[in-house]
Amino acid sequence: MEPSMFLEVENEVSVVAGSKLSQLRCSRDGRDWNTLLPSSVVTAAGSSDILAVACQDRMLSVFSSCGRRLLPAIQLATPVSALHCSAHFVMALTAGAALSVWDVHKQKALVKNESLLSILPGADTTVSQSLLTQQGVPVVGLSNGKSYCFSSSLETWTLIADKGDSMVQCADFRSCLPTQDAPVSSGPLAVMQGRNLNAGRLASRLSSTPHHLQQSMTLAFLENQLASALTLQSAQEYRYWLLIYTRFLVNEGSKLFLL
Amino acid sequence: MEPSMFLEVENEVSVVAGSKLSQLRCSRDGRDWNTLLPSSVVTAAGSSDILAVACQDRMLSVFSSCGRRLLPAIQLATPVSALHCSAHFVMALTAGAALSVWDVHKQKALVKNESLLSILPGADTTVSQSLLTQQGVPVVGLSNGKSYCFSSSLETWTLIADKGDSMVQCADFRSCLPTQDAPVSSGPLAVMQGRNLNAGRLASRLSSTPHHLQQSMTLAFLENQLASALTLQSAQEYRYWLLIYTRFLVNEGSKLFLL
Amino acid sequence: MEPSMFLEVENEVSVVAGSKLSQLRCSRDGRDWNTLLPSSVVTAAGSSDILAVACQDRMLSVFSSCGRRLLPAIQLATPVSALHCSAHFVMALTAGAALSVWDVHKQKALVKNESLLSILPGADTTVSQSLLTQQGVPVVGLSNGKSYCFSSSLETWTLIADKGDSMVQCADFRSCLPTQDAPVSSGPLAVMQGRNLNAGRLASRLSSTPHHLQQSMTLAFLENQLASALTLQSAQEYRYWLLIYTRFLVNEGSKLFLL
Repeated sequence: MEPSMFLEVENEVSVVAGSKLSQLRCSRDGRDWNTLLPSSVVTAAGSSDILAVACQDRMLSVFSSCGRRLLPAIQLATPVSALHCSAHFVMALTAGAALSVWDVHKQKALVKNESLLSILPGADTTVSQSLLTQQGVPVVGLSNGKSYCFSSSLETWTLIADKGDSMVQCADFRSCLPTQDAPVSSGPLAVMQGRNLNAGRLASRLSSTPHHLQQSMTLAFLENQLASALTLQSAQEYRYWLLIYTRFLVNEGSKLFLL
Repeated sequence: MEPSMFLEVENEVSVVAGSKLSQLRCSRDGRDWNTLLPSSVVTAAGSSDILAVACQDRMLSVFSSCGRRLLPAIQLATPVSALHCSAHFVMALTAGAALSVWDVHKQKALVKNESLLSILPGADTTVSQSLLTQQGVPVVGLSNGKSYCFSSSLETWTLIADKGDSMVQCADFRSCLPTQDAPVSSGPLAVMQGRNLNAGRLASRLSSTPHHLQQSMTLAFLENQLASALTLQSAQEYRYWLLIYTRFLVNEGSKLFLL
Repeated sequence: MEPSMFLEVENEVSVVAGSKLSQLRCSRDGRDWNTLLPSSVVTAAGSSDILAVACQDRMLSVFSSCGRRLLPAIQLATPVSALHCSAHFVMALTAGAALSVWDVHKQKALVKNESLLSILPGADTTVSQSLLTQQGVPVVGLSNGKSYCFSSSLETWTLIADKGDSMVQCADFRSCLPTQDAPVSSGPLAVMQGRNLNAGRLASRLSSTPHHLQQSMTLAFLENQLASALTLQSAQEYRYWLLIYTRFLVNEGSKLFLL
């Protein structure tokens, strides 16, 4: 089990030369450390490896679990609205709707101040969820039911889940699901798609849909799942959906060639 | 000869659970495939290797020539206004005047959502031509006679042709052109410069220009051609202009040192 | 000693086909060269390796010290307001408050059109100083006393000096300074921090500050210096501050564990 970490922040611990200092105190695994910051801490987040704090002066600081400063003070363009750490990655989502992710070990940006405006269709759509995977892939869920991840290699937002997508609702691959003994899919893709993924439950009600159309929908859906799992670098989910996809091709193969 | 590819799009092939599905049907070299998309297709483009379609929901999808989805669904910020495929590269120019190019094999962005505003001097200048080379270099021709390519290594717009440039019109290198048997220059640089490149035809009329000035113009022009061909990764054109440049240096060498 | 370079610009040296040509004449180490540009030169800068000129048409051209064109003509989005060359790097700061740096040898962008708006808190803050290190790291000093460098690996602005930072003013490491024989710190970090760095001069006056707080301030300050020197790729300054940091840990070590 991971050792617990206790983080305590005391803003305005002292006023020196007219400016207010904040103190960060951290306790973990019997080791204590503390450090000072020249502005009030507004958000903090941590993982097993790192600790990140964002201050009122829009500065982001990252420390090791032993208190060593790992990055120089990073100036954010607007205040931070969500801060996540996962493994040795840190993700900052700002009030200006921009997303950044850094690989702290490699001292390298993975995602650089990317605007969310591309994926927000209008002012009434909001960010309902955000997460950072153990591989440093950022995922954003919107109030319109769509979830996106930012691919650092394709350098673009890619759609990984859409609760309103009819293909998700109509794809029927019940006969291809692993046996109950096999591990079920768990990971960022499952988290973002939620219970909406009903493996053809709705589809069975839509008996009016022609069979060849439902086959095409299922195939397109399964290929989307593979592409999404790959983009999310979610190895377990990729294997899970590849197995279902392969079974589907085998089961339906002879019929597919007759399309 | 390349086998022909037939691509057929049927929008609203079916309405399932309230949303309209589109079908993409492709036939090539005797192999047929089809797939479904959850929105109307507005543009499609293809090369020998890949097929790209942009939908009304601003999603870009890329498939192999056999119908396998090669990239996750890419969300564009604004509707696509031009879509090109060349070899395994895909280029999207959006209505928001931003350009992107992806290397589909490497699953990597070469040019990432670059604004054309840097090269558009005013609202009255428009994009008159756009192309993507076999090396994945995007080229944009404007209504003001200037052509730019976006260099993915320099990460900036570079001028490769300007029909109004006096140096283009006055450079005189007729004596250095290859013999008629040699291959003429063909490639993206020639395409963008067009017949305007008259090898000193205008220059001969401008007999009032001092000789040493015309020499300098010719040298500067030839060096620009080399830099442009290099940026365009156009090997054949680079060789062509290097030959002319070398001949010019040899022919005019003794005079150049007297400048 | 570096050989001197003389650069002479003559705008409108000739009017050909309606457009004005400018001539650049360069003399260095007994070698002369000249070239023509199709627009008036507005700024020029040079280093031991390269020469850069920005023209009225917002084109940036880079030449070798022998006059060979090294980059294609780069189109800047707005007029250049500061141009620096250092070793084989060129930096352009534009009137639109965007910064770019290119590595001319590698034909590669290090910093790509980065907005300064992230670091400018309001319209009354201006850029008071800008420099480019021998390693190609761009540094910008603002009128509010803060200095930033843009890290090309973290792809973000990082704070490297703040004249108003109370920790800078209160850190006390006088007992850890190298002897007078040792080389003093010189480099971009020292340039941007200036004489403000008084090694605890102010601190000694602030005798009311509790000792453990001043210790924490000194530690935090020294760790900031290390992170800044690393980001600036300033090897000599990193060694200098590492030595002081180590001495401080040794001197204060027993007391630090009692915090």
